[in-house]
Parts: sequence; C-alpha cells; structure tokens
Amino acid sequence: MKRYQIHITGKQGIFDPAGAASKNALLTLGYEGLEDLRIGKFIELSCADDVSPAQVEEMCAKLLANPVIEDFRIEEIVGNTEVA
Amino acid sequence: MKRYQIHITGKQGIFDPAGAASKNALLTLGYEGLEDLRIGKFIELSCADDVSPAQVEEMCAKLLANPVIEDFRIEEIVGNTEVA
Repeated sequence: MKRYQIHITGKQGIFDPAGAASKNALLTLGYEGLEDLRIGKFIELSCADDVSPAQVEEMCAKLLANPVIEDFRIEEIVGNTEVA
Repeated sequence: MKRYQIHITGKQGIFDPAGAASKNALLTLGYEGLEDLRIGKFIELSCADDVSPAQVEEMCAKLLANPVIEDFRIEEIVGNTEVA
C-alpha cells in the first residue's frame, strides 16, 4: 500500500473567504497580533502499489483540486512514519 | 513575524463525508486502486512576534478546529523555507 499526503492551497491573489472570515473572528476575539490566515485542504490518501504518482496527480487535477484557483503539492509517505 | 502551519484532521472513527464522496467519485472515474481518502484542513497563519505558540493553540481549540471531532497539529516555520 502506498500513502500520499496532498496540500491544496489557494493561488496567490485568489480571495480566501473562509480564511478572511476566520481571521476577522479571531481579531474580534482579541488575537490582535494575527496578520494573515489562509485555509486550504489537507488530504491523506492510500492506494494500491500499482497506482502511480502520475495517477495521483491526475486525481488532484481532475477532482480533488481546482487548478484554476488552487495549487496542489503531493508527497509520498515512505516508511512507517506518522503522516505529517 | 512568526509563521505557523496547522493541520486539522478528523479524529479516528469520525465519518468524513467529503472524503467518502471524493473517494466514490474517483472510483467511478476508474481509479480502482484507491483505498482510503480523508480530507482535512491546512492553515497557514502569520502573526506578530509577541503571539505565543500557546495562543495559536488557543485559536485552534476555540475557533479553527472542532476538538470534539478533529485533531490539530501546529508547527512553527523557522527561517525562510517555503511553507510545506
């Protein structure tokens, strides 16, 4: 079994409504030192050994991420380390 | 300025509807080797130097994550490395 972790983040310059709302809420709660907050997705995926990294990239581009407004980064987890 | 990255993941045993829907969609698209897919959140946060790591933990527990059904992990980014 292969394991991957995928980070999906909004492209530079794309407005992040969830991040902006959370930032405003935290400022209201009194966390005045907060400067920036952006929310993306973190995906943990496991698959059979015959699934190639190129196929995982395809899954991201086709369905998991929106390449128009999001960047994604795929890392394969090697060994028994805890998924970061 | 301090930078943090936060991973928020569903606790073991908690159903992840977005992950399940994405997994089913990918299986339908023909990615038969896919075994498991879980979707969490990835937050990039920057704040003033006087914000303590304990305060960032508080932000997560109070607002960014739901500690009843989610775990979170906070890492401080040291130096000029790219945010992972």
